[in-house]
Amino acid sequence: MSALPHDAAWRARAAKVIPGGMYGHQATTLLPDGFPQFFARAEGARLWDVDGRMFIDMMCGYGPNLFGYGCQKIDAAFQKQLYAGDCMTGPSAIMVELAEALTAMVTHADWAMFCKNGTDATTMAATVARAHTGKRKLLVARGAYHGAAPWCTPRPAGVLPEDRAHVLSFVYNDVNDLARAFTEAGDDVAGLFAAPFKHDAFQDQADVDPAYARACRAACNATGALLIVDDVRAGFRLARDCSWARVGVQPDLSAWGKAIANGHPISALLGAERARDAAASIYVTGSFWFAAAPMAAALATLRMIRETDYLERLETLGGRLRDGIAAQAARHGVPVRQTGPVQMPQILLGDDPDFRKGFHWARVALDHGLYVHPWHNMFLNAAMTDADIDAALAATDAAFAAVAKNGASLPPVPQLRGLFA
Amino acid sequence: MSALPHDAAWRARAAKVIPGGMYGHQATTLLPDGFPQFFARAEGARLWDVDGRMFIDMMCGYGPNLFGYGCQKIDAAFQKQLYAGDCMTGPSAIMVELAEALTAMVTHADWAMFCKNGTDATTMAATVARAHTGKRKLLVARGAYHGAAPWCTPRPAGVLPEDRAHVLSFVYNDVNDLARAFTEAGDDVAGLFAAPFKHDAFQDQADVDPAYARACRAACNATGALLIVDDVRAGFRLARDCSWARVGVQPDLSAWGKAIANGHPISALLGAERARDAAASIYVTGSFWFAAAPMAAALATLRMIRETDYLERLETLGGRLRDGIAAQAARHGVPVRQTGPVQMPQILLGDDPDFRKGFHWARVALDHGLYVHPWHNMFLNAAMTDADIDAALAATDAAFAAVAKNGASLPPVPQLRGLFA
Repeated sequence: MSALPHDAAWRARAAKVIPGGMYGHQATTLLPDGFPQFFARAEGARLWDVDGRMFIDMMCGYGPNLFGYGCQKIDAAFQKQLYAGDCMTGPSAIMVELAEALTAMVTHADWAMFCKNGTDATTMAATVARAHTGKRKLLVARGAYHGAAPWCTPRPAGVLPEDRAHVLSFVYNDVNDLARAFTEAGDDVAGLFAAPFKHDAFQDQADVDPAYARACRAACNATGALLIVDDVRAGFRLARDCSWARVGVQPDLSAWGKAIANGHPISALLGAERARDAAASIYVTGSFWFAAAPMAAALATLRMIRETDYLERLETLGGRLRDGIAAQAARHGVPVRQTGPVQMPQILLGDDPDFRKGFHWARVALDHGLYVHPWHNMFLNAAMTDADIDAALAATDAAFAAVAKNGASLPPVPQLRGLFA
Repeated sequence: MSALPHDAAWRARAAKVIPGGMYGHQATTLLPDGFPQFFARAEGARLWDVDGRMFIDMMCGYGPNLFGYGCQKIDAAFQKQLYAGDCMTGPSAIMVELAEALTAMVTHADWAMFCKNGTDATTMAATVARAHTGKRKLLVARGAYHGAAPWCTPRPAGVLPEDRAHVLSFVYNDVNDLARAFTEAGDDVAGLFAAPFKHDAFQDQADVDPAYARACRAACNATGALLIVDDVRAGFRLARDCSWARVGVQPDLSAWGKAIANGHPISALLGAERARDAAASIYVTGSFWFAAAPMAAALATLRMIRETDYLERLETLGGRLRDGIAAQAARHGVPVRQTGPVQMPQILLGDDPDFRKGFHWARVALDHGLYVHPWHNMFLNAAMTDADIDAALAATDAAFAAVAKNGASLPPVPQLRGLFA
C-alpha cells in the first residue's frame, strides 16, 4: 500500500484521462518520490496535500503567491468585482485604472496591455518588436525560459524549424557573446529578450551584471531593436518597478504575470512610448483577457506593493533562511550553493553532479513539512513569518543531517536519467 | 458634451495608457457610434454600461455567458474552491474530476488537457497534430477564426511568413476544394481544422454540410492527419457533446473554451486515444493553467449542461427571436438574412453591402435597450426568459422602423471605410 493512498488513487485516475497523468511545470515527473501531485488546500504560506500533509510552501505556486494564499484584502477586491461583473461583453473601467497604476509604478512604461499567460505577454512582446522594427530576429539568452509557445517552449516535440527560424541565442551576462549574436543577426534584430537575472533550472542563478545590462541597452539603441525584460517570474519580487530599474537600465517592453494579482489570472505587456503604435497595430486577444475581477485583484495587489514593507520583509526573511542554511551546511559538512536573490533562492548541493543528494535533501525536508524544489528557483511570500523560517530551518537541518549520513551511498535518481546520461 | 459622459471620460483616460485606447475583440473600433466601450455591471441576461444604461446582452461576453452572468450555482462552486485553494504549487484533484466529466460527455474524447485561452487550445491542437504525424501542414478554412497567435491571428502585423509557412486554406463546405488542398499539401498534412459551422464575421453563417464533414474525416483517415474541431466558440451551445456529433463525425481533437465554465477562465484540448502519446510528448504550460477554482466552476457548469433543459430552452428562445424578427422585417419591408443556429444567430440586413443599414439597425436597437452586434454572430444564454425575448423584439421593431424610414439616406460608416473601400 502506498504511503500516500489518496495521491496514488488520484494519480491512477489521472493516468486515464490526462496525457502522462499530468503535464507542464507542475507535473511531479522530475521531482523526488514522495512529492504529492495533488493538493487539497492552501492558506497563507501553507499547502495541504490530498493525504492531509501540511507544508510550508517554498514554491508559492511557482511564483503567483506573493502576499499569501487567499490574502483577504486582495480576495475581497476580487470578490466585489466578481459580483459586479467579471467576463462581460466589454471591459470594466477598472482596466484603465490598472493600466494607470502599472504605468505609474514601472518607470519605463507608458502603456499596458493585459492578457492571461506569461507566454501571451512574451509572444506579444516579440510581435510588437517585429511590427515596430520591420525586422525578424529575436535574441534570447541560451537556456532562459520565456514561455511554452512553439517559438520558445523548452521541449520541441511538435515544433517546426520555422517556429524558431529567427531566434538566436547568446550567453547571459557575456558582453562579447552578445556582440557576436548582434553581428551574426546582421541588420535584422527586432528584439532582445533579457531575463531580469539568470534563473535557469538545474543551475546556479546569477544576478545581472550592470555592465551587461547597459550593453544590452546600447546595442538596442544602436540597432533600433527593442529591449524586452521578461519579468513574468521575478516581477515585484525584486523591486517595486521593473527588475532592471535596480541596475538603472530601462527596457522598451516588459512582460509581467504570475504575482501581479497574487495568483488571480492576469498577465501584462508594458511598453514605452516609442513602441505604442506597433502595439496598437497587432491583433491579439483572448476570451477572458478583459475579465474585471482579476484586474480588481491586481489593483489591490499593486496597492499592497506600494504601501507595505513586503519587499523589505521578503529580503529579511530570505536573508535569515540563507544564513541559517549556510550555517547548517557548514555544521553538517555538506557543501551548498545558494544563488539568486534571497527572496527567489536557488539551493543546490555541492559535489552533486546528478542531483541525487539534492533529491534526498528535498525529500527529507518535505517529510519534515517543508516543500522545497531540488532544481528550480523557489519563492518567498509576504505571509511568511519568522516562525515559518524557524520551522523551515528545522526541516532543512534534518535534510542536511540525512545527506551527511546517507550522501555517499545514494543511488542515481531514475527520474533524471535522461538529463544526466 | 458627449451623450455618454462617463464612457467618454474613460475612453480619454484609456487612450493615454492602452495602445489604441483598447484592443482585441472587445474594442468598439468597428461598432456603431454610441456603443459603450466600458461596462459597470452584469447580471443574468443583462449588462449595464458606465453611464448607467441597461441592455439585454445578445453577445454574452462573446460567448462565455451560457447560464447568465453571475449564475449562483456555478459561482458558489467557484467561491468554495477559491477559499480552499486556487492557484497552488500543484493542481487540485478537481482537475481529474473535470477531465473525467468532459471525456464522459464528449464522445470522441479519451483525455483532456486544460489551458486558459481558446488560442492555447488550438495551438496545442496544432502542436499535437505535428508531433503525432511528424508532418507539417495545417489545413484551415479560409476566413475561419482559430485564435490570435502568430500562426492564426487575422491581422498580420508583426507576423512573419515563417509563422504561416505551413498553413493552407480551402473553402468551407466545399469537398472539391478540400481535396485540392490535400493534394497541394502532398503527404505532409498534420491536421485539418474544422469550424463546427461557418461562423465568420461580416458574412452569412452556414451549418456544416454532413457530406463535407464526412469528407474531412475520410481525408484524415486516408492520410493519417488529425481532424480537429475548434469548438471554442460554439461548444455546448449546439450539443451536449462535440458540435460535430450532430452530424455523426468524430474528430481526433477538439478545442474548447469560452462557455465551459460560464465565464470563469479555462479552456481545454480534448483528444482521442490515438493522439494521447503525442499530447504527452509536447511541453505546454501556463502560470494559471492548473488553478482549481475555474475547474470547480467548469464542473458545476457541466452538471447544469447535463441535468437541465438549457439547450432546448436556448433553441426555443432563439426560434421565437428569429421568427419575430422575420415577421418584423416583412412588415417593415426591410430584407433581413438570419443565419446560423438560432442560439448563435447572425443577423444581417439585405441590400446593405457596406453595412450602413446594419449599423443603423444595431444603434437603434441599442438605444432601445438591446445590445446587438452588426457583423459578428451573437449568443443566447439560458438566463434569458420569454419576457426578455419580448423586450428584445420591441427593440428590433423600433430598429426596423428606423431602417425603413432612414435606410435610403444613410451615409457610409466611417469605421468600416477600410473594409469596403
